[in-house]
Amino acid sequence: MATLKEIAEITGGRVRGDDKIEITGINTARKAGESEIALLAKPGKKAPSTNAAALLVPDGIPFDFPNLILVADPMPAFAALLTFFHPARPFYSGIHPDARLGENVTLGKDVCIGPFSFIGRNSVIGDNSEIHANVTVYPEVVIGRHCLIHSGAVIREKTIIGERVIIQPGAVIGADGFGFTRDGQGRPIKIPQVGRVVIGDHCEVGANTCVDRSTLEETVLAAGVKLDNLVQIGHNVIIGPGTAVSAQSGIAGSTKIGSQVVMGGQVGIADHLEIADKVMIAAHCGVSGSVKEAGALIAGSPHQNMAKWRRSQVLIRNLDNFRERLRILENKFKEKSK
Amino acid sequence: MATLKEIAEITGGRVRGDDKIEITGINTARKAGESEIALLAKPGKKAPSTNAAALLVPDGIPFDFPNLILVADPMPAFAALLTFFHPARPFYSGIHPDARLGENVTLGKDVCIGPFSFIGRNSVIGDNSEIHANVTVYPEVVIGRHCLIHSGAVIREKTIIGERVIIQPGAVIGADGFGFTRDGQGRPIKIPQVGRVVIGDHCEVGANTCVDRSTLEETVLAAGVKLDNLVQIGHNVIIGPGTAVSAQSGIAGSTKIGSQVVMGGQVGIADHLEIADKVMIAAHCGVSGSVKEAGALIAGSPHQNMAKWRRSQVLIRNLDNFRERLRILENKFKEKSK
Amino acid sequence: MATLKEIAEITGGRVRGDDKIEITGINTARKAGESEIALLAKPGKKAPSTNAAALLVPDGIPFDFPNLILVADPMPAFAALLTFFHPARPFYSGIHPDARLGENVTLGKDVCIGPFSFIGRNSVIGDNSEIHANVTVYPEVVIGRHCLIHSGAVIREKTIIGERVIIQPGAVIGADGFGFTRDGQGRPIKIPQVGRVVIGDHCEVGANTCVDRSTLEETVLAAGVKLDNLVQIGHNVIIGPGTAVSAQSGIAGSTKIGSQVVMGGQVGIADHLEIADKVMIAAHCGVSGSVKEAGALIAGSPHQNMAKWRRSQVLIRNLDNFRERLRILENKFKEKSK
Repeated sequence: MATLKEIAEITGGRVRGDDKIEITGINTARKAGESEIALLAKPGKKAPSTNAAALLVPDGIPFDFPNLILVADPMPAFAALLTFFHPARPFYSGIHPDARLGENVTLGKDVCIGPFSFIGRNSVIGDNSEIHANVTVYPEVVIGRHCLIHSGAVIREKTIIGERVIIQPGAVIGADGFGFTRDGQGRPIKIPQVGRVVIGDHCEVGANTCVDRSTLEETVLAAGVKLDNLVQIGHNVIIGPGTAVSAQSGIAGSTKIGSQVVMGGQVGIADHLEIADKVMIAAHCGVSGSVKEAGALIAGSPHQNMAKWRRSQVLIRNLDNFRERLRILENKFKEKSK
Repeated sequence: MATLKEIAEITGGRVRGDDKIEITGINTARKAGESEIALLAKPGKKAPSTNAAALLVPDGIPFDFPNLILVADPMPAFAALLTFFHPARPFYSGIHPDARLGENVTLGKDVCIGPFSFIGRNSVIGDNSEIHANVTVYPEVVIGRHCLIHSGAVIREKTIIGERVIIQPGAVIGADGFGFTRDGQGRPIKIPQVGRVVIGDHCEVGANTCVDRSTLEETVLAAGVKLDNLVQIGHNVIIGPGTAVSAQSGIAGSTKIGSQVVMGGQVGIADHLEIADKVMIAAHCGVSGSVKEAGALIAGSPHQNMAKWRRSQVLIRNLDNFRERLRILENKFKEKSK
Repeated sequence: MATLKEIAEITGGRVRGDDKIEITGINTARKAGESEIALLAKPGKKAPSTNAAALLVPDGIPFDFPNLILVADPMPAFAALLTFFHPARPFYSGIHPDARLGENVTLGKDVCIGPFSFIGRNSVIGDNSEIHANVTVYPEVVIGRHCLIHSGAVIREKTIIGERVIIQPGAVIGADGFGFTRDGQGRPIKIPQVGRVVIGDHCEVGANTCVDRSTLEETVLAAGVKLDNLVQIGHNVIIGPGTAVSAQSGIAGSTKIGSQVVMGGQVGIADHLEIADKVMIAAHCGVSGSVKEAGALIAGSPHQNMAKWRRSQVLIRNLDNFRERLRILENKFKEKSK
């Protein structure tokens, strides 16, 4: 619970209305109760129909409402209020009697480890990090401070994880990269994968996402990389800071992705490419070559510049018309030639 | 083991032949032994070459065979016989001594929980539900009666699951939705995901499939929704009753899918769309806009009406021919103009 | 550590240079230290800039370097050296006190089972096989000798696994195939999946990959099949020996894949098809029909012969030009007709 005045402080915004009213929660405008605040990230021309006590809105909204929190950018303010009204509760406090540690594990202060989680020999877990149930950490892993490792995650040997990293359930960090050669009869021979994965501070790895260890050297997620669910990061891939990869996308081996790249869902990027900073890749795009231009928008499979791809789609949808015009011309020509 | 007469009762069909013969199992026509019954869902003109003692066939088959079970629709009959001949055996009976319950967990009658499974505080498991090994149920989850939760599944906090729901191994229910905003320097800021997942009766969630919790409000699978393996359901998605989603398909945030929609494999549906009831979506389709027409057939990426898409494909494959005709016309024109 | 002479023996190659120098590890040319050997699989015209003590190169390289190991094919030699310098260390030696076995489990010699792993009743684990932590093996599974089952993997009932098979973390073997029919009201009815999965010798299954059990009969990976991460293998699929499937690809039910087929990432193959031996399928390809020609190269969605697909892409990218030429012809014709 907080007064509107306190909410202004939490969000870095200002109150218009009664700053003494008490707010008990945050909700959507549609569902908000009479003591809740609701987010209106993109307000329309009219005030919404809502029971909310107050609205969180961007400066300069075109309507009036009894109680408002006005902020320059409502999304970070929304994030702050969600955290305030829904503080994280630890899954388990302390080391559960059914957690198991291998030899020579180093635990920082206030580490929590849930039941049936195992930490392999020589691994290090930083202060205040929390490991839920049924997690497997292999030997010689380093996990930084304030990390959150959800249940069912598997962290393979020698992985290095920074601070304030979140690993969602079922994610697999450091599985063997897909490296094979073939013998004289064409039968596959495994290339052992002896490198590691390095994950920077503030990264998040989605549920059932896989980040493969490298053959030699490292697969790297730089600081602030966000991977959605069911994403595949191949061996030796390097992803720059702040890049976000949506669900079911895959990046093949040794490709280098710049910083703050944004990838839609189900994108595929071929191996050994380079993608420049701030490139935006539309969902379902198949990237078959490097993208050198920072901030480029690309789409299609194989990928094209977004404007060209759009034009291409229009032309394809006009093929029937082309065909008809061609037929007409041919007929006219025949008549003329008679 | 059952007589053919008993099999007629199980399947709601009728016997043609000797209703006293004993059937020991069900198999394919190709593999059936001399005391087994085989399914022929789509019989050809001739009786198949088989050792089977009897065949399960639709009414009105065009050939004769010594012993037949005739039914209007053979597939539900087939399902009934598979269940009869392969009754489910519990993975583990009762609560395994190596299962662990948090505080204030409520278990119904005849609940089974396997080794190394953990049920978080305040969760409720309904009568006759079965939880296999290495399952993690977070706090404040409600699981209805007669559910089956396979090994390695993770059910995050506050998830609500109805009755007779099956969760296949490794599925993750209620992981955080992929919600981020960016600060002034473009660095991602996490939007906490504090909503929940609600799964209706008779749903099935495939292996390693992910159903994300919503930001606020709910992500919903209505009754009878069937998700195949490695499917991604984004936050705030709502899926109508009886919809089936094939493997590796993904539905982005806040999209609303109607009832009895059928999706092929590797389909992608963009965010904030609406898909009408009984729409059929071909495999590999990229749905970039809402589909308002109930029962529409769509394909392609970006999607089109199936008939248009097919025509489009034919036209694309004729482009060489168009090009040649264009060249001929241009040449003729040049000659004429001389 | 090994002398260059010993390395020649390990790799089946020959030394050019000082065969007495001692090599302490293997690395990339870029990162190699002064006592390491580096692979140069595809050497350029000049020697690389490297601190490496020696290079592993194919016969007939066009430059000189102080110490070389020359081999006919450097990749198998590279694999051998990675294994030599990075010998696998067991995750856990022996049966961990927190592993649990069901009734009547048979363990071979020197089996290792990690903490929180469960082996179901009547299962058999072959000599020298290693099962890591948090693995669930259901009842009546057979696992051969020298297998490696990583943490979080789930092996469902009745699965048969050959020798020297590697299952990466989180993989699910034998989950129910996606089989449903619908009742009179269109509601899905589950078809029980009572078949099994059979995996041949030397196979590898990637992290979070799913191989579904068949309805009846078997889903089969023949010897030496290599599946990357997040792959979906539908029920009743049969994959021939030595076939490699890259990440996020899916093969729908009852499709039969030949031997030594190579599939790029995110490929989809429809159900009930046949793919001939040694077919090569480009990434992101949607295979909608059988491919009968052994060794065919295919691409696109729906798939085409690679050469046709390439041509098709060029033509599509020329549509603007076609359109313009058509417009010019129409205008000329109009003028003529005046």
